[in-house]
Amino acid sequence: MKSLILAGGSGTRLWPWSRTNYPKQFLKIFGQDSFLQLTIKRLLKLTEVEDLYLITHADAYSEVVAQASEIDPRLAGQVLLEPAPKNTAPAIAYALDAFIQKGVSVKEEVLVCPADHLITPDDVFCQQVQAARQFAQEGCLVTFGVRPTKPETGYGYIRAKGNQVCEFIEKPDFATAQRYLLSGDYFWNAGIFLFTIETMQREFEKYKPDFNHPVSIDQAIMEKSQCLAMIPLELTWSDIGAWDNLYEVLEKNDEGNVLQGPVHTFETTNSLVLAKKRLVATIGLKDMLVIETEDAVLVAPKAEAQKVKNVVAQLQGKSEVCDPQTSQRPWGYYTVLEEGPRFKIKKIMVRPKQALSLQMHYHRSEHWIVVRGTASVTIQDQKKFVHEGESIFVPQSAVHRVENPGKVPLEIIEVQVGEYLGEDDIIRLEDEYGRIKQEEAFKVLLGKTKR
Amino acid sequence: MKSLILAGGSGTRLWPWSRTNYPKQFLKIFGQDSFLQLTIKRLLKLTEVEDLYLITHADAYSEVVAQASEIDPRLAGQVLLEPAPKNTAPAIAYALDAFIQKGVSVKEEVLVCPADHLITPDDVFCQQVQAARQFAQEGCLVTFGVRPTKPETGYGYIRAKGNQVCEFIEKPDFATAQRYLLSGDYFWNAGIFLFTIETMQREFEKYKPDFNHPVSIDQAIMEKSQCLAMIPLELTWSDIGAWDNLYEVLEKNDEGNVLQGPVHTFETTNSLVLAKKRLVATIGLKDMLVIETEDAVLVAPKAEAQKVKNVVAQLQGKSEVCDPQTSQRPWGYYTVLEEGPRFKIKKIMVRPKQALSLQMHYHRSEHWIVVRGTASVTIQDQKKFVHEGESIFVPQSAVHRVENPGKVPLEIIEVQVGEYLGEDDIIRLEDEYGRIKQEEAFKVLLGKTKR
Repeated sequence: MKSLILAGGSGTRLWPWSRTNYPKQFLKIFGQDSFLQLTIKRLLKLTEVEDLYLITHADAYSEVVAQASEIDPRLAGQVLLEPAPKNTAPAIAYALDAFIQKGVSVKEEVLVCPADHLITPDDVFCQQVQAARQFAQEGCLVTFGVRPTKPETGYGYIRAKGNQVCEFIEKPDFATAQRYLLSGDYFWNAGIFLFTIETMQREFEKYKPDFNHPVSIDQAIMEKSQCLAMIPLELTWSDIGAWDNLYEVLEKNDEGNVLQGPVHTFETTNSLVLAKKRLVATIGLKDMLVIETEDAVLVAPKAEAQKVKNVVAQLQGKSEVCDPQTSQRPWGYYTVLEEGPRFKIKKIMVRPKQALSLQMHYHRSEHWIVVRGTASVTIQDQKKFVHEGESIFVPQSAVHRVENPGKVPLEIIEVQVGEYLGEDDIIRLEDEYGRIKQEEAFKVLLGKTKR
Repeated sequence: MKSLILAGGSGTRLWPWSRTNYPKQFLKIFGQDSFLQLTIKRLLKLTEVEDLYLITHADAYSEVVAQASEIDPRLAGQVLLEPAPKNTAPAIAYALDAFIQKGVSVKEEVLVCPADHLITPDDVFCQQVQAARQFAQEGCLVTFGVRPTKPETGYGYIRAKGNQVCEFIEKPDFATAQRYLLSGDYFWNAGIFLFTIETMQREFEKYKPDFNHPVSIDQAIMEKSQCLAMIPLELTWSDIGAWDNLYEVLEKNDEGNVLQGPVHTFETTNSLVLAKKRLVATIGLKDMLVIETEDAVLVAPKAEAQKVKNVVAQLQGKSEVCDPQTSQRPWGYYTVLEEGPRFKIKKIMVRPKQALSLQMHYHRSEHWIVVRGTASVTIQDQKKFVHEGESIFVPQSAVHRVENPGKVPLEIIEVQVGEYLGEDDIIRLEDEYGRIKQEEAFKVLLGKTKR
């Protein structure tokens, strides 16, 4: 059996945590692992590393590779790159073609999972997938249905009798959802599928979805197919589609609040207050959301959580909506601390034995101050060590590289000064992580220059 | 006539804008001038610079001098320093003694004003003070009463018939305040007083308030005196005691919102949303306060504005409650951009022709990057110019100074690195602004070391 994680999702309703260029799957909400990483770990209980694949598009590729590599470095080679972010049907079709090109038998089963859902506990999930394999081997497209626990209007439903699927249903209204809840025949569509390659290819052949347009696997195949089976998932599942869903699944304190970070509440109840950094004080709040991040703050009643997407749409194009404050890189990460006219300040963390690319900038000089660890810095032909509390100057247009030769993380404060401080003023000359080749490949694939 | 501004106030209900060490009087809410500066400008329409005095205590002294000097440099010499922040009665008594020591006649009138009230328009105020002088010359303690416009429970009241004061009344309950509003005989006590030195000294002699304890001039004298007069102030007055008062006096948009900074509202009405820096997005708010600053965020219903003081009391001791993010200095100002383990980053602005003190630090090295302007930097015996985009390193324990020799403001990013980064790790060796002598004077006055 192969596992395939659909890691090309977008989604804006967890803004300001999620960003256009940093969707929900990358967020580390439950402990140290992101949704994507939790999904990988869950599937590694069912499949070997070499049978686990991820599929994503160019914009998310680096982050998917970085997060997957943290779990197992071998996964870096198992990330499939779609030509464009379309939807689940083209992504699955593309992945099946890739499997066949790799010589995978068409008799083999494929388990398809979204990257950004909450599923717990893992072992119950694994048991139920194992139980489903027989149906897949018999030629069924197996879907997984979650028994509803509330009249949720944000999910699609499956009506089923036993393992037999009667109907796929789009998001219902509240009254209908209440009826579904009471009936017992309706299940939430968990967006997880199991099938053999030949079964799915036969269905693609039969229903011929138009891959020039984004189309979901539900619309393209599931709603039409005559060879469906459903396995009920008896576990906790949520797509955490919005802040109120997150509030529901997190543990509350005695006042019904979910608090994170430097938060001080006063006469506040049943609220979700998350602070990344700054002190957030609340007075007299009830059923509210307050989400603070380095560059944006959201305040709304919990009941209005769905409207976050409207606000994100109105703010589209702004960096607070598009870009995460901390950007992961193969060598570590950086956080923009401050931007002003003619300067930008970053905190850079380089993992032990890692190195940034050999690079230069036309429009800015850089000042590096080592806060922790030891840096090995190359500037033009000169190489020297910079220790804690010391600094070094990189003039405009000088070819330079910073490495962490040591055994502890290297932390640097970088102050950039110049007229133009965009991330795209970077000319890479050598790179440990194949990013120069990758950039060339992207150019060919996308017919454009990828920064 | 002398004017005396009581500039020693504290007050926490405009937190997070106001801080224990940066009270309301210093805030620039209405345009470019702070409450204190607006008060100075108003009184300069009544008295000459040499007749205008301010009184404050050691903790607020530097900022009072800095803000007063911005209006007129001569005012720096007119700031009286009380031994300790007590209340209005000891402050007024101390100032009258100081006037007499300076040879002021006891027949002279003194106009006493709080530093942190909103009064507009200035010319109406000046006319009404002029009208009051006759009463002061006749031996009255003149108070000023504002005709109430709503049943305010946060102010003290004066009951008066014509100019005759019948009664001083502490903050009433709502029903009583409603009755006062309808009666026409009740006025808000504006905390402004006019009297001759000899009249007030006679009353101090008569009622002998205990200056060892904080006591207001109202409690000590006004509620007891038999020689009062009241002048009604026919103008707009507010003590802006809390966020809801501020909302009331500011201009609203079509949705009844007062917005400042990078704020985006969605289905939000009758709310006060103030952002200093980060994007603040609100959804579905009604009658709410959202106050964002560099280091703290407050969210509360407008009706709960009075409870800010409770929260501040609970958070006492934390830097977000005590210290402003931007600190004014005689040479310019600095803002803490970021603090982390072993580093602190500041943005420093030095005005043209100004210089920081010659100083050293035992526990930190400093890295200065010039973002704008030209710096003249002395390190030990060496002096050199540092230009835009250049940087310089100040090792631990090196004696150093930075000056702005140029004609445009000098902007520097300072990165401090070290084990201990407190503001009190500073040894001043020479200073243009008399701060070394001032520190010595404070030591004598307060019997302790002032950092």
